[in-house]
Amino acid sequence: MSCSVARTLEVVGDRWSLLIIRDAFYGLTRFEELQSELGIARNVLTVRLAKLVDRGVLTKVPYSDRPDRFEYRLTDKGRDLLPVVLTLMAWGDRWEAEASGPPVHLTHRTCGHRDVHAEVHCSACGEALRPRDLRTDPVPVAGARREPDLLTAAAGDERAS
Amino acid sequence: MSCSVARTLEVVGDRWSLLIIRDAFYGLTRFEELQSELGIARNVLTVRLAKLVDRGVLTKVPYSDRPDRFEYRLTDKGRDLLPVVLTLMAWGDRWEAEASGPPVHLTHRTCGHRDVHAEVHCSACGEALRPRDLRTDPVPVAGARREPDLLTAAAGDERAS
Repeated sequence: MSCSVARTLEVVGDRWSLLIIRDAFYGLTRFEELQSELGIARNVLTVRLAKLVDRGVLTKVPYSDRPDRFEYRLTDKGRDLLPVVLTLMAWGDRWEAEASGPPVHLTHRTCGHRDVHAEVHCSACGEALRPRDLRTDPVPVAGARREPDLLTAAAGDERAS
Repeated sequence: MSCSVARTLEVVGDRWSLLIIRDAFYGLTRFEELQSELGIARNVLTVRLAKLVDRGVLTKVPYSDRPDRFEYRLTDKGRDLLPVVLTLMAWGDRWEAEASGPPVHLTHRTCGHRDVHAEVHCSACGEALRPRDLRTDPVPVAGARREPDLLTAAAGDERAS
């Protein structure tokens, strides 16, 4: 598990957990709301929420004491998953949308543009990251036999052409 | 399923699929390589690869005809998952790394900086996306009862303080 992708997926690497996190960003924080919106089995939701609390992604906060009721809010660690949610959304908008276009319009209030999407940029220089521009050191995958570029798949395509 | 996050997770919303895609970016494209690296059951890997081919994320290409052997390469659609992989990596580096630091160093060749990570920026103006700056229209989650900001969780925190 010497790879941060694998470690992240240990925490949020299932469809329900990522949908719970998406819903938390949209303001659904109570068990009944999440259960109703997701159509998830109650016992599965209970297990997923407990794990996300245990791993520090959500925090359980009381909102009523007669009866005892809790809601699940994103922690700083949980809110820091926004880039993951936004890149999943951008990919779905591009590759899995209906012919009528993306189902949701994202507006960037700062610049005022509608229908924006998230792009990945370099934290050092701010430029957009293109796959060939990246190198990982070391390559965390045993048996990777080609050049240690993050996008060796592109080299594979060239070899085939 | 009127949400692109959910649609994306229909295709790659499980840990194995995302690890297969990560490995494809590192140049592992053959069944035996993937099986050995991931320690995944062969029947599970077979099912995951077939689904990723069916959904157009990987393409099956012959590399030997005596015996017949295939490898699985990322398509354009698959390569476009790099932002998802990079944001998963960035989160793991920040929140799940050992005390010794992130297991992998990412170098951006263009600017020469080592230890960069992916940030999400606006496709229109190029500025870094902060949660509060985003608005979705419509809100694709039934029952979202607060303002339609992508990060309503922050409002929840304020209410609590």
